[in-house]
Amino acid sequence: MTRARRKPVRDVPIRSRIARTSRDRIVVRGHNLATELIGKVDLGEMAFLMLRGRLPTEHEARLFNAVLVTLVEHGLTPSVLAARLTYLGSPEALQAAVAAGLLGIGSQFVGTTEDVAQLLQEALSEEAPVELEPVARDVVARYRSRAAAIPGIGHPLHKTADPRAKRLFDIADEEGYGGRYVALMRLIAQEAERALGRALPINATGAIGAVMSELGLPWHDCRAVGLMARTIGVVAHLQEERDHPIAMQIWLRAEAESSSVRSRS
Amino acid sequence: MTRARRKPVRDVPIRSRIARTSRDRIVVRGHNLATELIGKVDLGEMAFLMLRGRLPTEHEARLFNAVLVTLVEHGLTPSVLAARLTYLGSPEALQAAVAAGLLGIGSQFVGTTEDVAQLLQEALSEEAPVELEPVARDVVARYRSRAAAIPGIGHPLHKTADPRAKRLFDIADEEGYGGRYVALMRLIAQEAERALGRALPINATGAIGAVMSELGLPWHDCRAVGLMARTIGVVAHLQEERDHPIAMQIWLRAEAESSSVRSRS
Amino acid sequence: MTRARRKPVRDVPIRSRIARTSRDRIVVRGHNLATELIGKVDLGEMAFLMLRGRLPTEHEARLFNAVLVTLVEHGLTPSVLAARLTYLGSPEALQAAVAAGLLGIGSQFVGTTEDVAQLLQEALSEEAPVELEPVARDVVARYRSRAAAIPGIGHPLHKTADPRAKRLFDIADEEGYGGRYVALMRLIAQEAERALGRALPINATGAIGAVMSELGLPWHDCRAVGLMARTIGVVAHLQEERDHPIAMQIWLRAEAESSSVRSRS
Amino acid sequence: MTRARRKPVRDVPIRSRIARTSRDRIVVRGHNLATELIGKVDLGEMAFLMLRGRLPTEHEARLFNAVLVTLVEHGLTPSVLAARLTYLGSPEALQAAVAAGLLGIGSQFVGTTEDVAQLLQEALSEEAPVELEPVARDVVARYRSRAAAIPGIGHPLHKTADPRAKRLFDIADEEGYGGRYVALMRLIAQEAERALGRALPINATGAIGAVMSELGLPWHDCRAVGLMARTIGVVAHLQEERDHPIAMQIWLRAEAESSSVRSRS
Repeated sequence: MTRARRKPVRDVPIRSRIARTSRDRIVVRGHNLATELIGKVDLGEMAFLMLRGRLPTEHEARLFNAVLVTLVEHGLTPSVLAARLTYLGSPEALQAAVAAGLLGIGSQFVGTTEDVAQLLQEALSEEAPVELEPVARDVVARYRSRAAAIPGIGHPLHKTADPRAKRLFDIADEEGYGGRYVALMRLIAQEAERALGRALPINATGAIGAVMSELGLPWHDCRAVGLMARTIGVVAHLQEERDHPIAMQIWLRAEAESSSVRSRS
Repeated sequence: MTRARRKPVRDVPIRSRIARTSRDRIVVRGHNLATELIGKVDLGEMAFLMLRGRLPTEHEARLFNAVLVTLVEHGLTPSVLAARLTYLGSPEALQAAVAAGLLGIGSQFVGTTEDVAQLLQEALSEEAPVELEPVARDVVARYRSRAAAIPGIGHPLHKTADPRAKRLFDIADEEGYGGRYVALMRLIAQEAERALGRALPINATGAIGAVMSELGLPWHDCRAVGLMARTIGVVAHLQEERDHPIAMQIWLRAEAESSSVRSRS
Repeated sequence: MTRARRKPVRDVPIRSRIARTSRDRIVVRGHNLATELIGKVDLGEMAFLMLRGRLPTEHEARLFNAVLVTLVEHGLTPSVLAARLTYLGSPEALQAAVAAGLLGIGSQFVGTTEDVAQLLQEALSEEAPVELEPVARDVVARYRSRAAAIPGIGHPLHKTADPRAKRLFDIADEEGYGGRYVALMRLIAQEAERALGRALPINATGAIGAVMSELGLPWHDCRAVGLMARTIGVVAHLQEERDHPIAMQIWLRAEAESSSVRSRS
Repeated sequence: MTRARRKPVRDVPIRSRIARTSRDRIVVRGHNLATELIGKVDLGEMAFLMLRGRLPTEHEARLFNAVLVTLVEHGLTPSVLAARLTYLGSPEALQAAVAAGLLGIGSQFVGTTEDVAQLLQEALSEEAPVELEPVARDVVARYRSRAAAIPGIGHPLHKTADPRAKRLFDIADEEGYGGRYVALMRLIAQEAERALGRALPINATGAIGAVMSELGLPWHDCRAVGLMARTIGVVAHLQEERDHPIAMQIWLRAEAESSSVRSRS
């Protein structure tokens, strides 16, 4: 029943290089946990260390924390609702509700930062410097020919400008990371507005995808960063659910509406 | 089939007070996300804001980040192995593997910080100042009479001192949070060593439970903090699993050992 | 950080006795899978074999299948809604949505069959035959003194009789499993109606808890049976969600209601 | 942050057509649950009803149950190990461990039945009758040219014949469902053996994919069937883990092997 099993498997050793522990020391990604990390780095820097294998510079730390902070909270998302509805059934197992809140972080929501980063990273995969305007025009033309939405631009509510996107790009500029990915994302938005004749500001997804690319994260690691940040948001919503529950109300309304018998009576 | 359904339910409004969004602003826990949080607070401070409803002081921020950083990584834990084995089957759904890694954060592992915090918070629930030595003696006597292990002390490897615990208590002292919970935890360890006649240093769990209590977190929120931090560790292990896989090896060895037929042939 | 780790661990072999595989045979719980199970037993009988370690009699098979069939579907439960909302975010990972649908099967919903079975099994734990009426009176009195709802009786909709409960008890009688647990459950309902002065028919949970007890399942295995059956129901709802989606609507309504700005505009 | 949100959404009603409940009746997929399903259909027939919207014939019921029974148990799979390792951390939340056991049912293992069914259903998508031999030759040639393994054939242990596959095809023949999909699967295996010059018997995955196609299940529903069956297997392994634990041993060995310090000392 197993595709993977067909591959020949050598008797490889079981080893993780992330941490080493001895009687008096724990070393994580090459740094003594007690003396070099605890009390010296913040959670965003620790996350960078875990993901990239080295501590961030001060500039990278501020920018990466900014991305993470942006991703923490987005209101009553489907993920948050799934977590709250799960908590209603098993309040004794917080981890189950948090896990339910992460399971929808797939292709449709937070995962869309992946699409932006992939678009940008593939467009600029050449080592040689390229002119960005033609690349932007080409991207827009390609999506238009498929009648597909360009990832990272436009927002149903923030119609003229997404305040998070502007802020992230400002910080990227301040920290010296307003490079080619940021520039290309800006050009794509301009070109799309020109071609489609309506306001299509860069949204948070677009800014995050561009900034992660500037920070050297491969596009397939973007979802990982989203999961790190969203866990915090989901936990806060479950705390609120405990004190001010709404899940039962969502359930009862859905059930009542679906049950014609009850809604008629 | 539902216990909860029996409760009378008024038609309560569906509302979350965590965030508010309008055309040009997103406000999270009372702070403008773009102008007051992104680029100004780190992920640990954001987590504190989400959990407690207010931003931490500089002192709280350093101590809370220290706790979070301590919790991120603990080697090839059962959680990490569950995540890696899940990734082996569905590498296309990172969120599924991360969720599997959180689902075991229950009563037996990270959740044990809850036990420590509950012990300390219940022991010091009186408003009146109490002498701590008798409380410590009482705690130790109570656990001994049940032949139960006292949470927060002793470690199979760090036999004389857990470097993380010492460091967390130093930071608590530096930041002005070395209060009664920290003092009680220290006294419990001393009393247990005296009563049982062997080294029983405060371990990371013990230090975290005491420091979270100093930070005013109710004991039932400790698991939530562990989930926030562990997500980061689990993600890093999945990144390692992608590049240096071990899950298949763990599987093949377990299967081969269990299958007498194959191990004999 | 680990409570479990403190236990001394011998180097125990890794072994599962559920199945054995050799070049030409797979043996599950003592039966040749290909020649004795596939094509000969139905899924309910297979589930009984897996849980109990032996095949059911014809009578047990009919009764156990009846319990499972009863548990499959219950409309737009919180579990089903959590699954559908997860599917909205990651339709490419069906297993993630199904898992989200199981994560709320805890203390509050399907898990309540556990409460019924525990109540009945503890009340009849004596080997000696006991008179059932006094036991029933004692149970009702005990719950009333705590002002607690008695598990297994009463239903917000099926006020006079739960058709599933009646049917399950009829089948238990037909198959020779209408024993002391079923009798006690009936007496508890009668006594509760008498004491509280209103109709409190046995509900599906009550009937399932009693019938599982008759089948010899320890109360802590009831949740396991619920999980088996509910997976099937959740899968069917996800199939419906794919073709006739409602999750986005639930999300948009919740978000709109919570966001005062949008609901005003 | 949301791709889906961009789609215009009408105010669609929230409705599930799977079940209807009134004061005295529960109707599931058009059948009265109490009088037509409980006690009359087995769990496999109920699963068919839920998935397909109608009850199976006697022939379909036997064949579909056979497929489900085949999928229940496969030894210490990665899924089972993930479930057991999760149970080690939160034995109080069975649903969390079961969910962990389902989360790896993705592209690499049980999900491979999807690949077989897709291959067969796409190869025979024409309404006109086609000759099967050229189709089989074409399939084998296509996979060979990509140096890809053909799904559904070959097995590392059952080298000459997979007893499950043979049995499933026998039952399909007996029940009148040994049609074009089964025939094409057989021809593909024969052609692959001829072309590659070694035994490549149809494995369980291959047989299940073919039989599900015969039963009219679209290929993208195969994973759903696997999830239904595997839940039962995972639950049984967790029951065994409770009584005869191995997860701690797997964990301690992995940790010891990875920690050079400990393995040297």
